[in-house]
Amino acid sequence: MGNTVKKLAVLGSTGSIGQQTLEVVRALPHHFRVVGLAAGKNIDLLAKQISEFKPSFVYYQDKRAQAHLASAQFELLSLEDIASHPRVDTVVIATSGQSGLAPTLAAVKAGKNVALANKEALVMAGEIITREAKINDAQILPIDSEHSAIWQCLRGETQPAAQLILTASGGPFHHYSPEQLNLVTLEQALRHPTWRMGRKVSIDSATLMNKGLEIIEAHWLFDMPFDNIGVLIHPQSIIHSMVEFIDGSIKAQLSYPDMRLPIQYALSYPERLPNPQLTRLDWSSINNLTFEQPNFDTFPCLKLAIEAGKKGETYPTVLCAADEVAVELFLSQRIKFADIARLVEQTLEEHESIAHPTLEAIMAADAWAREKVMQLITGDNL
Amino acid sequence: MGNTVKKLAVLGSTGSIGQQTLEVVRALPHHFRVVGLAAGKNIDLLAKQISEFKPSFVYYQDKRAQAHLASAQFELLSLEDIASHPRVDTVVIATSGQSGLAPTLAAVKAGKNVALANKEALVMAGEIITREAKINDAQILPIDSEHSAIWQCLRGETQPAAQLILTASGGPFHHYSPEQLNLVTLEQALRHPTWRMGRKVSIDSATLMNKGLEIIEAHWLFDMPFDNIGVLIHPQSIIHSMVEFIDGSIKAQLSYPDMRLPIQYALSYPERLPNPQLTRLDWSSINNLTFEQPNFDTFPCLKLAIEAGKKGETYPTVLCAADEVAVELFLSQRIKFADIARLVEQTLEEHESIAHPTLEAIMAADAWAREKVMQLITGDNL
Repeated sequence: MGNTVKKLAVLGSTGSIGQQTLEVVRALPHHFRVVGLAAGKNIDLLAKQISEFKPSFVYYQDKRAQAHLASAQFELLSLEDIASHPRVDTVVIATSGQSGLAPTLAAVKAGKNVALANKEALVMAGEIITREAKINDAQILPIDSEHSAIWQCLRGETQPAAQLILTASGGPFHHYSPEQLNLVTLEQALRHPTWRMGRKVSIDSATLMNKGLEIIEAHWLFDMPFDNIGVLIHPQSIIHSMVEFIDGSIKAQLSYPDMRLPIQYALSYPERLPNPQLTRLDWSSINNLTFEQPNFDTFPCLKLAIEAGKKGETYPTVLCAADEVAVELFLSQRIKFADIARLVEQTLEEHESIAHPTLEAIMAADAWAREKVMQLITGDNL
Repeated sequence: MGNTVKKLAVLGSTGSIGQQTLEVVRALPHHFRVVGLAAGKNIDLLAKQISEFKPSFVYYQDKRAQAHLASAQFELLSLEDIASHPRVDTVVIATSGQSGLAPTLAAVKAGKNVALANKEALVMAGEIITREAKINDAQILPIDSEHSAIWQCLRGETQPAAQLILTASGGPFHHYSPEQLNLVTLEQALRHPTWRMGRKVSIDSATLMNKGLEIIEAHWLFDMPFDNIGVLIHPQSIIHSMVEFIDGSIKAQLSYPDMRLPIQYALSYPERLPNPQLTRLDWSSINNLTFEQPNFDTFPCLKLAIEAGKKGETYPTVLCAADEVAVELFLSQRIKFADIARLVEQTLEEHESIAHPTLEAIMAADAWAREKVMQLITGDNL
């Protein structure tokens, strides 16, 4: 075991998950080699990563980078070309938002191992991606801590699970009243109690939209009906999720909250690797794990996501797109925290859905939802 | 799956585990058939079980039973002959004490699936039993909730675990001082907070000797060094044990505390079966799981067991035998609660151990220890 070096392409390498992926590679250089890197606009960091990891293939969104990266030796490729390149074993999709969809599909169609941190790909196009993965013998390896936990708990089990239980920290506001939520500031919303994450995910965690998106992802990843996927608030983020089997036995996966562990598990699977940089759970300091039921009234995004997931078609795409725009508006302080759910809800209500959508129909629904949110905030609808 | 009916021999059918095994069979009659039953002295209950399950082979210890069972149709066999009978698929060793050793060895030598609830067999003769199991391709399927949990967590994992963490309810006295423990009554010691168990196991749980024996069992079952087996007090008995892997990821197995689940898992393995009689965990009523480090000073039996396990040879046999006699003395109210540990410790101190003991040497050490405890309480040594 461990004799072959896995060749990785990291798409979204300058984001939070991308950087933590590179930390894992740095800690385990005999196991992984970075052959592809792709980033959006953080060209300074990308330049450093290129100089450290010397990838063969690079993509960047910001064309001004060209001059900046002139001295480095690499082939400039599109995201899709990197994701499907014959010299890549595992593609890490660490981009956030809908930009992850096309490269995920390209990687899946090329039969790659796809280490997937991007939620939107499966939420928007779960039906297409899981079908293509099956056809092309591609393996989708979840990086989200919850889905990694479920995947680990399902390991070696040969019968379908009875129930998946996604745990949620509850975010920074999990005991707030709707009135208190109206007064929440951007700074408060970005202060996640347990995880080190990007800005978009931090806000989605505070609204519980993140958990709703994870339910839709879990539905596709593990072929599980929505009624058999539960959510449990667990503020300590030690149990990352659980699986209940048909005999009533439950397995849970636990660790110190550190995204590098699920990232590493996806990269090293089916092997596990020791990594001294990962903090082990210290049971002498863990006295108490607590659990609460989620409050669907205070956190309407959770309910909106489950409903959109159950309806399927282009509703999850609209949910995703409307949320992405609404979170951007909140991050730029143009709307209030509670407006995020209101905008998503109104957009979903006005959506005319399409059954078994093609990728084009999904992208059209995405564009429609983004425009609709902007219309809603410029009108008098809020 | 589920098309073949497994033929079971239940040795110790009138004890707590034996009765619960038959409850599982009763709930899943299309999966299991009882072909052998063996009991000690509870002939009334054995007669009822024979009339219900109509086994082909029976053993009973009390010869007065003969007249009582005259009308039933069965072959009277020894424990060993039932355990190794060609018509038996799985042997459930549900006896308590050293009487489980010979039939366990017979079953293992016959290449059976051995569903093992008896602790003493592995504690006394772990080296011999695991070696014979390997040679004869017999599978030892643990029934203890802790070992079942570990076994479930290890399912599908291909690398050795880094650490096993056995959970312990802590028994009824887990916050008592040594002074308080001196005043403990038999009735208090039998009142286990979470599990439905036999009298011997209840007392062993109160002294934590039970956990010590389980550590030795885990050492043999999972080929794990003693230094990599930890104990964690978890009073709610919801997490039944945990496994830490080399990447720091931990898996835990959880359920409502009901021995029928690990019994059923051992019988149905590798399949899981739905059983409406098993209560599912209700997360709306679980708010809190707590953990504490065990107190080795207040509960010396735990330390004695770990030391005996590490020394190996005939020390674990002496530990087991001395404990069995001491617990009987406590149950008949001839000694105090705290005397159990003192008697076991003194017996271990005076023992002259034998390396790589044969079965005969183990039985001799067992007999020596039993006699030694009786000498100790009739002398002035306590």
